[in-house]
Amino acid sequence: MRTQEQRQWAVQSSKVAMRTKNPIRMIVDKLDMNSVSKDKPLISLSIGDPTVFGNMDTDHSVSQSIARAVDTRRSNGYAHSCGFPHARKAVADKYSLSNHKLNENDVILASGASGALDIVIGAIADEHDNILVPTPGFSLYETLCGNKGIECRFYRLDSEKDWETDIDHMRSLINERTKAIIVNNPSNPCGSVYSPEHLKEIVAVAEEFCIPIIADEIYADMVFEGVKFTFLAEVTDTVPVISIGGLAKRYLVPGWRLGWVVLYDKLNILKDLREGMARLTTVILGPNTLVQAALPDVIHNTPQEFFDNINKQLSEHAKHTVNRVQKINGLSLSAPKGAMYCMVSIDVERFAEHTGGEIRDDITFAQALLKEESVVVLPGQCFRSPNYFRIVFCPSIEKLEEAYDRLESFCNRKLNLNK
Amino acid sequence: MRTQEQRQWAVQSSKVAMRTKNPIRMIVDKLDMNSVSKDKPLISLSIGDPTVFGNMDTDHSVSQSIARAVDTRRSNGYAHSCGFPHARKAVADKYSLSNHKLNENDVILASGASGALDIVIGAIADEHDNILVPTPGFSLYETLCGNKGIECRFYRLDSEKDWETDIDHMRSLINERTKAIIVNNPSNPCGSVYSPEHLKEIVAVAEEFCIPIIADEIYADMVFEGVKFTFLAEVTDTVPVISIGGLAKRYLVPGWRLGWVVLYDKLNILKDLREGMARLTTVILGPNTLVQAALPDVIHNTPQEFFDNINKQLSEHAKHTVNRVQKINGLSLSAPKGAMYCMVSIDVERFAEHTGGEIRDDITFAQALLKEESVVVLPGQCFRSPNYFRIVFCPSIEKLEEAYDRLESFCNRKLNLNK
Repeated sequence: MRTQEQRQWAVQSSKVAMRTKNPIRMIVDKLDMNSVSKDKPLISLSIGDPTVFGNMDTDHSVSQSIARAVDTRRSNGYAHSCGFPHARKAVADKYSLSNHKLNENDVILASGASGALDIVIGAIADEHDNILVPTPGFSLYETLCGNKGIECRFYRLDSEKDWETDIDHMRSLINERTKAIIVNNPSNPCGSVYSPEHLKEIVAVAEEFCIPIIADEIYADMVFEGVKFTFLAEVTDTVPVISIGGLAKRYLVPGWRLGWVVLYDKLNILKDLREGMARLTTVILGPNTLVQAALPDVIHNTPQEFFDNINKQLSEHAKHTVNRVQKINGLSLSAPKGAMYCMVSIDVERFAEHTGGEIRDDITFAQALLKEESVVVLPGQCFRSPNYFRIVFCPSIEKLEEAYDRLESFCNRKLNLNK
Repeated sequence: MRTQEQRQWAVQSSKVAMRTKNPIRMIVDKLDMNSVSKDKPLISLSIGDPTVFGNMDTDHSVSQSIARAVDTRRSNGYAHSCGFPHARKAVADKYSLSNHKLNENDVILASGASGALDIVIGAIADEHDNILVPTPGFSLYETLCGNKGIECRFYRLDSEKDWETDIDHMRSLINERTKAIIVNNPSNPCGSVYSPEHLKEIVAVAEEFCIPIIADEIYADMVFEGVKFTFLAEVTDTVPVISIGGLAKRYLVPGWRLGWVVLYDKLNILKDLREGMARLTTVILGPNTLVQAALPDVIHNTPQEFFDNINKQLSEHAKHTVNRVQKINGLSLSAPKGAMYCMVSIDVERFAEHTGGEIRDDITFAQALLKEESVVVLPGQCFRSPNYFRIVFCPSIEKLEEAYDRLESFCNRKLNLNK
């Protein structure tokens, strides 16, 4: 029992909550969004939400499918915590591969791909275990692992080789407590898309050390002209692959929070993990049932034309971005092949020299760009890659054009190259 | 690095996943649903989902609000991880009390009331801390605490006093690591609704020991004829109250997964906790945005008549249940005042004596009832209350009538009272 003296209010946040960190938010806070130039309308190249720019919208048929689910009023009750079986079956059918036939028990529906990753990471590793994570990489992996006290070991992607994995570095990080390797393909923030040959190199490491792969494939099939996407599970029959997907990016409905875990596990290596994941789904009881009910319709009946148009549009935006940005003094980039991002390298030494140290890294670059040109980009440190910044090239060509004009004049001015 | 010898697949589930337990599922598994009598159609009095019985449906205006949100196609993108500000404001306006004016910063939207509880419990306590939890009580508290390694300390509700809290027992459980008291009012599974006077007794304990209250008020205002519901925060200006609510039960849409945390915290005692909760929302990024977008409409424009009708219907079902069940030999119950449940006490000694020990507790009672009468009830052990069972009285009066006929003939037969 507490004594009289101790009776005072001292409500604190748990350690778990306080170790749950969002690196992007912490770095964006440093940018000081209020410092934006008042002469120029703000252009954001920072938001990883394709729907906010007004030029990309989900297909009418997708909205119709939800509207029908609402109308029937038969999907308002609880679903199984892993998802409605018919909705899981739709995912299983869609994502069966020629070497992996799936059924609904290989699928768990979750509250977005974030929720799916949360379940997988939570079930596969304990506090003080570690998971291999790409860098540059999506910061959510760090948020989720941090939340659970799991160590992230960051393996390098090689900017000189179209952001392929540095296999030797990946191998060097593995120890007894390595419980999974996260592979993000197509990549946020790099826009890279791996060849089957490179995927096989990664699989060989997993096979050698007997470590399952978590394949974050939320951008699956979002690839540009002439590029072919390969699911990681296509290149292996023996390494268990836990693939993460969802409606968010491909169907342009990130707010709907419908993601999934798909298990490619011919050898039944993940038997125990299935039980653990099923238990974790009982914490929040799965995603919204209206979206679940509509899922078979959405997955089977969205016209291919919709996807082709989105890919074509992103492909043009990517091409435009490369054409413009590679000509800007002090910047360089390799051409993205998929997703909706690219990483731009900043020649920080040159900027530091010409600005007397005012611009000395990606954060000071992004700060000055925001303040002087009202253009927002995410500093590479958000992805553990200093001296880069990430561009989201979803906005319209006109908006991109304007942003790149400003970026160019900014760089020229900072490098004293103005005519 | 692993050595050659150690290279074999051994993927296990994390400790965290395996300590995540759903007591209901574990006990229901023992019932053997396949043992059901083939002569009689199954009647379930076990499912806490008011929509599954076909006689209760959300209001047309609620479905319309979602349909409009779908139509506009302007709510498909990400929301703030705590929820759209206008949706949070709608909750703040609706749940402001005469002694507590709320604004949107006092509200966090979550993936169902389960998601809301998960965030609050995760932010308020660490592994090895403890939280006081009612018994009989909703098993989700145990699932969520178990998941986080938080100890549940179970305080008794007194069946002799309409399931009021045994205040002395509650006090006796508090120690230095007690981080919160969960109060569930109206109660699942008891159907009790607390008077302002009793709520004040609970608040006095919280005040004495400086422990915040988590008030699970998901059944707020679902009360029967002549009963008035009081929010816990109405009876205190000094003890911080974290209220949990959502659309699930009151609006009959549990599958939509829209719950909330509301902070009644005039003295700003929960400042740190707010930060912790905000961090935890970044794990799954909030609930479905279509439902969020519709929330102001749903909250402000659902006709009062809808709620009155549901309460009237549940009130009649409750009355009917009491009338029938209290006359059944070997059973007793106190009249529920709210929610959609009641707990029925089984005179197990009498049943054991007459059945030669075949029926000796709530589980064997529920098993035999299922097998012989095709009626499903949840054993009290699901709620840590042996020798009771819970009735969900949502099904139609006709269904209830049939179920109670069977229950009566079952008890008479087992007690050798058949004519």
